[in-house]
Amino acid sequence: MTFKDDLGRRAAEVEGYLVACLRDKGIPDRLLKSMEYSLLAGGKRLRPVLVLSWNGLLGGEAAKAMPFAASLECIHTYSLIHDDLPAMDDDDLRRGRPSNHKQFDEATAILAGDGLLTEAFGLMAAASLVEGLPADRVLRAVSVLARAAGAGGMVGGQTVDMELTGRTGVPLGELKKMHAMKTGALLTASCECGAILAGAGETDIDNAREFGRKIGVAFQIVDDVLDVVGDTATLGKPAGSDEAMGKTTYPALIGLDRSKTLAREYVDEALTHLSGYFGSEQEFLWQLARYIVDRVY
Amino acid sequence: MTFKDDLGRRAAEVEGYLVACLRDKGIPDRLLKSMEYSLLAGGKRLRPVLVLSWNGLLGGEAAKAMPFAASLECIHTYSLIHDDLPAMDDDDLRRGRPSNHKQFDEATAILAGDGLLTEAFGLMAAASLVEGLPADRVLRAVSVLARAAGAGGMVGGQTVDMELTGRTGVPLGELKKMHAMKTGALLTASCECGAILAGAGETDIDNAREFGRKIGVAFQIVDDVLDVVGDTATLGKPAGSDEAMGKTTYPALIGLDRSKTLAREYVDEALTHLSGYFGSEQEFLWQLARYIVDRVY
Repeated sequence: MTFKDDLGRRAAEVEGYLVACLRDKGIPDRLLKSMEYSLLAGGKRLRPVLVLSWNGLLGGEAAKAMPFAASLECIHTYSLIHDDLPAMDDDDLRRGRPSNHKQFDEATAILAGDGLLTEAFGLMAAASLVEGLPADRVLRAVSVLARAAGAGGMVGGQTVDMELTGRTGVPLGELKKMHAMKTGALLTASCECGAILAGAGETDIDNAREFGRKIGVAFQIVDDVLDVVGDTATLGKPAGSDEAMGKTTYPALIGLDRSKTLAREYVDEALTHLSGYFGSEQEFLWQLARYIVDRVY
Repeated sequence: MTFKDDLGRRAAEVEGYLVACLRDKGIPDRLLKSMEYSLLAGGKRLRPVLVLSWNGLLGGEAAKAMPFAASLECIHTYSLIHDDLPAMDDDDLRRGRPSNHKQFDEATAILAGDGLLTEAFGLMAAASLVEGLPADRVLRAVSVLARAAGAGGMVGGQTVDMELTGRTGVPLGELKKMHAMKTGALLTASCECGAILAGAGETDIDNAREFGRKIGVAFQIVDDVLDVVGDTATLGKPAGSDEAMGKTTYPALIGLDRSKTLAREYVDEALTHLSGYFGSEQEFLWQLARYIVDRVY
């Protein structure tokens, strides 16, 4: 099986869980449709896959960690819905389709986001209450995720991103910090929570966290690069939209070549945190890290 | 000490915790200001007080349950911020001050709500990780609260409320169901979670839940009545705004007198769930239930 097939198979397993996870919860029809419209819009399911792979690498069972893994996709999806709103990035397109508030309406989009965020924490609890993972592990992971996704993490990162938009001369340090909050924190927490749920020791949890942090930086640099060199069909949105929106990017600050080199360096650093492990999950995480950066070569 | 003094003292204790709970979490300045603007805008702190009182009634320690109690206020506050948005109820005033998006801006208000909702779950986890409550109790309460606050509860209730707004001939059953989701679910969960965190047995948890459910209905009826008979100064918003907005209310459907009687009946039913208990917390909950309905007499 090639790496891409393996990634696709894992994404499909997550998808299977996501399809069912909002059903039979008494959600009003239009709201449910709106939540599912965005949750089931495809995507690589990178965050759940990271939870499950780190969990598996450290001895966890995939089925038990699945509700928690799915919660990461709910949080990621809600953040995309809210970021696209007219008051925020005002994006009409997402993954090549109308964004949630264009397909439904603004009020429904706001509530669909709120619903997905709240449901995420219900799914986390289900990892213990339904799947039997120890409650103390799950609660520690809930705490890690609340911090990563909250006002000091992802939500705060969106605030900072909007503050920086349209500003010229943004220092590299500020750009890095913004990305660490906006996209890095959730990728980092995905790996860390996978390890925590497996009952791993602190050294393993540190490796998971650092691996996540470093591929998170690489991921963002590559995203910036793709916005310059990619085409609309691949991106699902117009290429060059960062520049058009007045966003500071890595290529704008340090050039295209140095951006690519920097992404590769971060991936190489991430890989050092896999060196003490072996087996199919180690191999998969290794290839996943390389895949992130290979997309621009 | 009169009941009102007692309620004020309890609210002040919750307030003391709320003032500190968002600090030192790396929240960007403007976002933190926006979150605190709404979180610290006063109010009776009814939901945290219900958590703590049911917790105390069933043998729990207030200090240990406080982070969880505070999380209810974060969730309640986020829901008010999002409900006031132009795309939703479009309210310029809240508790006599500009609503969050008028004081800041729409994007900040959306993110402040998202931040408060996420932080709420971090606080719930802290009830175990910091205060030492057993993880399994806390996780069960997290699950109850996620359901109550989510798309099948409070968030879904807001969707239904907007669907019903402007419609004539809404049946009483639909109005009841909407309120049970929009405001009832969180009041019910406050009482239920207080009992769960105290390590109570299932009969006690049932009593807490039913007490919460019934005062929740009474609370909503009284709210509708006050919108008719109250004045702007007391309400913190223009009186008669329900009718002006095309909202179906209890007084509109069944008249003012029958509404008052119905509220009293629900409170009386709620009180039956306190009959097997004694002591200062039982007395307080009794008076709290009466206070809800006495506001309209």
